[in-house]
Amino acid sequence: MDIASLGASINMVWLLVTGFLVMFMQAGFALVEVGMTRIKNANHTMLMNMMIYGIGILGFFLVGFGLMFGGVGALPTLGVDGSVLSREFTVNLFGKSFGLFGLTGFALSGITSMGVIGFFLFQLVFMDTTATIPTGAMAERWKWLAFVIYGFFVSAILYPLYGNWVWGGGWLSQLGANFGWGHGLVDFAGSSVVHMVGGVCAMAGALVIGARVGKFRKDGTPVAIPGHNIPMAILGTFILAFGWFGFNPGSTLAGTDPRIALIAVNTLLASAAGTFVAMLYIWRQQGRPDPGMCANGMLAGLVAITAPCAFVSPLSALVIGAIAGLLVCWSVWFIEWKMKIDDPVGAISVHGVNGFWGILSLGIFADGTYGDGLNGVTGMVTGLLHGDPRQFLAQLIGGLICFAFVFGLSFIFFKAQDLIMGIRVSPEEEVLGLDRAEMTSVAYPRDIM
Amino acid sequence: MDIASLGASINMVWLLVTGFLVMFMQAGFALVEVGMTRIKNANHTMLMNMMIYGIGILGFFLVGFGLMFGGVGALPTLGVDGSVLSREFTVNLFGKSFGLFGLTGFALSGITSMGVIGFFLFQLVFMDTTATIPTGAMAERWKWLAFVIYGFFVSAILYPLYGNWVWGGGWLSQLGANFGWGHGLVDFAGSSVVHMVGGVCAMAGALVIGARVGKFRKDGTPVAIPGHNIPMAILGTFILAFGWFGFNPGSTLAGTDPRIALIAVNTLLASAAGTFVAMLYIWRQQGRPDPGMCANGMLAGLVAITAPCAFVSPLSALVIGAIAGLLVCWSVWFIEWKMKIDDPVGAISVHGVNGFWGILSLGIFADGTYGDGLNGVTGMVTGLLHGDPRQFLAQLIGGLICFAFVFGLSFIFFKAQDLIMGIRVSPEEEVLGLDRAEMTSVAYPRDIM
Amino acid sequence: MDIASLGASINMVWLLVTGFLVMFMQAGFALVEVGMTRIKNANHTMLMNMMIYGIGILGFFLVGFGLMFGGVGALPTLGVDGSVLSREFTVNLFGKSFGLFGLTGFALSGITSMGVIGFFLFQLVFMDTTATIPTGAMAERWKWLAFVIYGFFVSAILYPLYGNWVWGGGWLSQLGANFGWGHGLVDFAGSSVVHMVGGVCAMAGALVIGARVGKFRKDGTPVAIPGHNIPMAILGTFILAFGWFGFNPGSTLAGTDPRIALIAVNTLLASAAGTFVAMLYIWRQQGRPDPGMCANGMLAGLVAITAPCAFVSPLSALVIGAIAGLLVCWSVWFIEWKMKIDDPVGAISVHGVNGFWGILSLGIFADGTYGDGLNGVTGMVTGLLHGDPRQFLAQLIGGLICFAFVFGLSFIFFKAQDLIMGIRVSPEEEVLGLDRAEMTSVAYPRDIM
Repeated sequence: MDIASLGASINMVWLLVTGFLVMFMQAGFALVEVGMTRIKNANHTMLMNMMIYGIGILGFFLVGFGLMFGGVGALPTLGVDGSVLSREFTVNLFGKSFGLFGLTGFALSGITSMGVIGFFLFQLVFMDTTATIPTGAMAERWKWLAFVIYGFFVSAILYPLYGNWVWGGGWLSQLGANFGWGHGLVDFAGSSVVHMVGGVCAMAGALVIGARVGKFRKDGTPVAIPGHNIPMAILGTFILAFGWFGFNPGSTLAGTDPRIALIAVNTLLASAAGTFVAMLYIWRQQGRPDPGMCANGMLAGLVAITAPCAFVSPLSALVIGAIAGLLVCWSVWFIEWKMKIDDPVGAISVHGVNGFWGILSLGIFADGTYGDGLNGVTGMVTGLLHGDPRQFLAQLIGGLICFAFVFGLSFIFFKAQDLIMGIRVSPEEEVLGLDRAEMTSVAYPRDIM
Repeated sequence: MDIASLGASINMVWLLVTGFLVMFMQAGFALVEVGMTRIKNANHTMLMNMMIYGIGILGFFLVGFGLMFGGVGALPTLGVDGSVLSREFTVNLFGKSFGLFGLTGFALSGITSMGVIGFFLFQLVFMDTTATIPTGAMAERWKWLAFVIYGFFVSAILYPLYGNWVWGGGWLSQLGANFGWGHGLVDFAGSSVVHMVGGVCAMAGALVIGARVGKFRKDGTPVAIPGHNIPMAILGTFILAFGWFGFNPGSTLAGTDPRIALIAVNTLLASAAGTFVAMLYIWRQQGRPDPGMCANGMLAGLVAITAPCAFVSPLSALVIGAIAGLLVCWSVWFIEWKMKIDDPVGAISVHGVNGFWGILSLGIFADGTYGDGLNGVTGMVTGLLHGDPRQFLAQLIGGLICFAFVFGLSFIFFKAQDLIMGIRVSPEEEVLGLDRAEMTSVAYPRDIM
Repeated sequence: MDIASLGASINMVWLLVTGFLVMFMQAGFALVEVGMTRIKNANHTMLMNMMIYGIGILGFFLVGFGLMFGGVGALPTLGVDGSVLSREFTVNLFGKSFGLFGLTGFALSGITSMGVIGFFLFQLVFMDTTATIPTGAMAERWKWLAFVIYGFFVSAILYPLYGNWVWGGGWLSQLGANFGWGHGLVDFAGSSVVHMVGGVCAMAGALVIGARVGKFRKDGTPVAIPGHNIPMAILGTFILAFGWFGFNPGSTLAGTDPRIALIAVNTLLASAAGTFVAMLYIWRQQGRPDPGMCANGMLAGLVAITAPCAFVSPLSALVIGAIAGLLVCWSVWFIEWKMKIDDPVGAISVHGVNGFWGILSLGIFADGTYGDGLNGVTGMVTGLLHGDPRQFLAQLIGGLICFAFVFGLSFIFFKAQDLIMGIRVSPEEEVLGLDRAEMTSVAYPRDIM
């Protein structure tokens, strides 16, 4: 053993352990979504969360990873053995080259580097987070077969494409090198790549599938449909907050980068500010705190800090989280009352809206102490408040592209699927409950003897 | 500090963190078993899962560890301080020496090496996994005192004996050195040592204790007895899948072995294939997916990949997991409908059948890229499909011995215990529910004021 | 990279990963407390456990960390970059200097060392453990606003002050250097600093807030009020036991200290002995085992081993845990039947009584193999049974001071708060349930359509 291989070992241990924490977030999503929906659909919602994990693994292994990272020349931070074969699809515009997707590494073929194989695991569990998000917004009415097909769509195509543009060396990451807009779109751990993609896809899906029976009165007023097990949803929130310590600090891909300490602390502070502000806001609005919105406030703070966590100070993290806590309250109201979209768990607000806020906040608060060389650009990542408006521009463009591309492709996918096979169960099945309509068993059978 | 001690530190951190993940699997087992059984026995099933953890620790600390590893000359991979005093019981046959059990290290006496103490923790949590498995198959009718005695039997005697033969330098591990059968029985993380031992012991126990009241009609047709909380069982499955990332990758005992990345990825892929195939199979058979069997499919894939995870390619891991997903469906049906054994959670199928499949699959798919020097044999571990039938022979023998020895000893133990003190509650107590019959409280008391 | 920075990286990874495990204990506390209380207060109890996490983070970040550690000259074990600016408030008595609290590092201002920032995270999650404990003892009757204010009190003032005296270089840690009483108060991972502080504060709070409506008959006989979900409480216990492997081994602050193996094993053994003895005791007393007391027995063993885990042998850990298992049974009875204090979850007994036992047990069993140089004293930490009564004296004084100071300050705080604003809901609200009285929603709403 030598010093270089020891450093690589520390990085590999860090990468895997944090990746395992992210994997465990699947359980958190499952509990949040099941807890916030009704008892008659509990098995269906739970099983969507479990199967999306399995389906997502298959789709990302066979296709997605290659599309997303098959064009990357070398994975830089895993120490000694991070090279991959590289072949990518690019287009040329304005005399610049724009990478659109990779073309190698499907089913891990040709890859023998353990560094790349570890990196595959880490990226895979991130993808599964995205894939899980729409199962919340579309819960309680999604036809099983349609959901299964969606699972391959998101893991093999939708997530990897936008992911390539930001993390796989694609065109959004090159906005800095190509046009001098800061470091191009910078998204440390996935406010946009993971959360906003999931949230925007959830929005398209919720629009196409429509509101649950009884969600809106004839005059359009929304009716509250409370979830059947709030403590379960809060346990899920704790598991998510726990897993987020894999999500954000793990995204250094390196335990040898001391920045992991600051990243973890910023993650912690934003989650605290988010839940505290959401508690105060609803307390003031409704006269008492709301457990569900406290949970969503914590998650909103976590989503928002995901992009900027490595680039901002602890006090900025507090501010980013606090704003996220407000945003999620407003957004949940706006989406339900003004846009008339039925999102049973608030996934669009938590992940979509705060994902956007996350990448914007990086463009505002990045303090110029980290990120030298990122995306091939010399110098530190610096935001508006520290003097560089160009980074903010890259962030804004990245978010708008995320919305336009993900919404567009998802909407087309769901609409086409709906026309071809129908994505929604019949009203009778929905009223009966999806456990009786589509599963072999209900969630809580009574004692039979 | 020098390079050697840094490497030892990385290995120690890896060993402990992965060991902690394995310990957490106890919670997963508890949730799966309680969720899949009835409300009137929920406290009893839960408490068995909790107390087996405590009892197992005592039995393995006082006796089991010494029997299992007391004959090992040196623990090879923990870096600088892995030596133990070695004294073992062997028999001589065919002019060869066959190790049967160790005779030192009881209650950790004489052990000051921190490497060995860390190794003890890691081995202990594996043992507790085995010990927990029969609490599922024998749930809802097991007398508390009989269960407590069983806890000492499995942790102090049953598990350590077979474990010695495979991991403690005993005779099955020496089949290669003694007879040239590949590397002897190779079981990387315990498809046989942990899971098959647990599953076969569960089968003997379920046979001796008999089916639950009402499980079979007079004509022998089985009656479905649904568990009371399926989302709980699926949460448990997630926790198990999470802990398995300790189980398999941790079994390198070394964070400095880059193979941990491939092991983790293979674990992931097999779990996905197992759950996906089980979903498809039941969907086709019954017209709709079954949450419980999806969970069992994931667990089956995990059990099967446990032995071969370090020796096979990702595509082989997919195939191994997919076959496990089918096997568990067939086996659950066969055990219930043909063998008329009442196994409330499917433990025999998940752990026993797929444990056997796991060690066989290593003998089929091992690709000759890992394992040089294992069990004292030079050269890589290679399976049937890559040209070496002798390794498959060792695996087959190992599995048959596991079945014969564990079934035999467990059957004798349970039968003797039943004759002496009775291992089953009375039919009245069973119908009443074990929480009322044997615990101070029921699981879900109503509000009393 | 050089050897020193690799060592620092291993320590940072260890510190963060174990800190994450401690953070996850919040979920364990939440489940234990919600499971052991009534359905009508489930959301309220759950939300207290969630918000104390957020509130505690804010209080400790803004004020507490600076008070507790702002006087420490250098953080010794994090490798290369552990220095902080140091300014502390001290008093002089008997010609000696007594540190009382620190005065730098508020809101992490002036701190750029990643080592200190990681250390902040680790200390913060310990504080949140303390802060959570009284939410169990005071559950089912605590007014929300009063609880929120308490959250800032405990995280910003109460915990940091006693913490400074033991871990922040304050006067109890200097009893050895000042008076030759062993190494001064030694509390490896917080039997006193974390658990006894929490338990004693819980006792003061439970006294001031008074017993729940209906808990005691007119003649003073206590009435059992069973919790509504015992399996949930046991799942919480598993999560706590899992997180404790962060708590205790992480308290080396160094993955390069091989002692982490022994610490983990001692933690394991004490938890097993605690739960096993508690099971036997209640079995003998009541004729059957009690799931709730088995859980409390495991937690009691864990609390007790927290202080001595690094200083005692495995056999001593067994004994310490076994005594803890008895102590918690006696104490729960004594507090309910003799002291007439209503503690719904047994927090005072688990954390307060066994916290005291934990620091005393160190003074009895420490075997003189570890701790050279601790608190500035040369030589190993050695207890009564190994020949040094002076260490025991320091432990005894430390525990008595903990009780007197924490009880006094907490009692004054709660009493003053009660006089000013009232800390308890009205009897009508209590009977109605706090979810209906103070939350926007109940925990388990029925299907509405």
